[in-house]
Amino acid sequence: QISLMNDLGADTKGGGKSSAAADKVVEEIRAKGGKAVANYDSVEDGEKLIQTALDTFGRIGVYYICTAMLWLSELILISNLIQRVHLRGSFLVTRAAWNHMKNQKFGRIIMTASAAGIYGNFGQANYSAAKLGRKYNIHCNTIAPVAGSRLTETVMPPDLVASLKPEYVAPLVLWLCHDQCQENGGLFEVGAGWIGKLRWERSQGDIVRQKNQPMNPEAVRDQWEKICDFTDATKPTNIQESLQSIVSVLSRVESEGEVGANPTA
Amino acid sequence: QISLMNDLGADTKGGGKSSAAADKVVEEIRAKGGKAVANYDSVEDGEKLIQTALDTFGRIGVYYICTAMLWLSELILISNLIQRVHLRGSFLVTRAAWNHMKNQKFGRIIMTASAAGIYGNFGQANYSAAKLGRKYNIHCNTIAPVAGSRLTETVMPPDLVASLKPEYVAPLVLWLCHDQCQENGGLFEVGAGWIGKLRWERSQGDIVRQKNQPMNPEAVRDQWEKICDFTDATKPTNIQESLQSIVSVLSRVESEGEVGANPTA
Ligand SMILES: NC(=O)c1ccc[n+]([C@@H]2O[C@H](COP(=O)([O-])OP(=O)(O)OC[C@H]3O[C@@H](n4cnc5c(N)ncnc54)[C@H](O)[C@@H]3O)[C@@H](O)[C@H]2O)c1
Ligand SMILES: NC(=O)c1ccc[n+]([C@@H]2O[C@H](COP(=O)([O-])OP(=O)(O)OC[C@H]3O[C@@H](n4cnc5c(N)ncnc54)[C@H](O)[C@@H]3O)[C@@H](O)[C@H]2O)c1
Repeated sequence: QISLMNDLGADTKGGGKSSAAADKVVEEIRAKGGKAVANYDSVEDGEKLIQTALDTFGRIGVYYICTAMLWLSELILISNLIQRVHLRGSFLVTRAAWNHMKNQKFGRIIMTASAAGIYGNFGQANYSAAKLGRKYNIHCNTIAPVAGSRLTETVMPPDLVASLKPEYVAPLVLWLCHDQCQENGGLFEVGAGWIGKLRWERSQGDIVRQKNQPMNPEAVRDQWEKICDFTDATKPTNIQESLQSIVSVLSRVESEGEVGANPTA
Repeated sequence: QISLMNDLGADTKGGGKSSAAADKVVEEIRAKGGKAVANYDSVEDGEKLIQTALDTFGRIGVYYICTAMLWLSELILISNLIQRVHLRGSFLVTRAAWNHMKNQKFGRIIMTASAAGIYGNFGQANYSAAKLGRKYNIHCNTIAPVAGSRLTETVMPPDLVASLKPEYVAPLVLWLCHDQCQENGGLFEVGAGWIGKLRWERSQGDIVRQKNQPMNPEAVRDQWEKICDFTDATKPTNIQESLQSIVSVLSRVESEGEVGANPTA
């Protein structure tokens, strides 16, 4: 097993550039008898990065996308980094690797999200890659780690940074990369030695319009409690399930008397 | 009430530019006795857009971020658009409006996600804005609509495009924009007259390391079923809850005998 260590050596704001970070890990791997090559390209140069891997190893099995991004403290920070380096980087590297993985009929992609993101807004990379990759044995999962790092030492007390070891995250990544692991499209929180899985829960919701009548915001307000009530919530796992249930509402409103009924029932 | 209709008039791939789309809506509003002004800037020029609104109205109450993005059919499509227009656009507009909202102590932001994104990967804009805005009475919610549009007519049968009216989405947006609406940080699926709410569910998970022993991928593999078991799942609503429970694992591992216990119990 040979590893390609990619690290731009950026500071926590995404600026600067140094080869030290990648070199240090490569040295550690070699000291333990492993084989490793360093690469200092930005993940934004996805093609270059993947080409280095191909030139060195002839094939790409696994890669772990993990670039710097500061925790939210200000709105301006988050998005600058998420969107310039994080998301774009993940995408460019994925795109560059995709055809090679497809041809060799093997690939494992692990993306990094943060818990701040999980309880917030929503992108598409993980789901799409998971779905598209299935028939080529390309799996894509996402982890939301908590660990002491150059990143978190700026926002966490030193003893916590020391206790929350990256070694308590790495075994999950290793397992997700293993060819025996069938997990695909999953999202995991991991840290301190604990691992948990996340999924969506959807309220039964409510139909707030009646046949041949305009739908109005007052009806939405009046039914708000029911819309937000998670009793008997469903667990839709993909966009098809979601879409089907919504389309079914059309005929249910037409056949009347069913106002307020749950589309997923 | 005066509206600013922003629309670049782009084609479904994000290219092209025409004033027709925004003009048409402005005309419709005026025909009904309302006041409206058109704006053809890209959401990527957030400052310009918000300045036009300020010049016209003197204040920004509500804005609804809604730009073109094609449904996933290929990996390359999604990310190009999501990341260049969607996420970046949402962010730039939010940033430009933020201080004005802060000063006037009122704001409502509605972002648009797609169901494909919801069951997939995760960004941060909604959560961060919701959290940061709370003390200024700035709320941020996200909707995942299903409706016939120039966008969906390329992927849906014509009768479905005609049936799934945008009028079945708009009342939710209106209610979320209302100053009586206290909802903040929520995510809603909406279409056909039905509205449902989404939230995360987290498995109890498992602690897969023991005191003074390295954590290894074999333990992760062996406990995989438990890690992914959603019996008695919790519903963490924010990053603090998530973090606290993970940090608590540290002392639980130290006090031993509790291997496998749930950090959230
Ligand atoms: N540590 C945590 O608790 C935590 C929590 C949530 C999410 N994350 C995520 O995990 C990932 C890794 O974070 P970390 O804590 O190890 O931070 P870190 O700062 O220690 O490591 C990030 C590395 O990415 C490199 N980098 C930055 N821009 C790059 C680019 N364009 N191309 C290639 N490399 C680049 C940096 O040089 C740095 O070495 C990030 O995506 C972060 O958002 C970490
Ligand atoms: N219609 C659906 O069923 C559906 C489903 C899921 C998500 N969405 C989301 O809803 C939003 C609106 O989609 P729609 O169905 O109304 O599509 P649409 O194509 O009818 O409208 C999108 C509009 O955005 C404009 N636009 C594109 N780039 C812009 C830019 N840079 N600045 C300003 N305006 C720009 C286009 O000119 C177009 O008029 C999109 O974000 C889409 O992803 C829609």
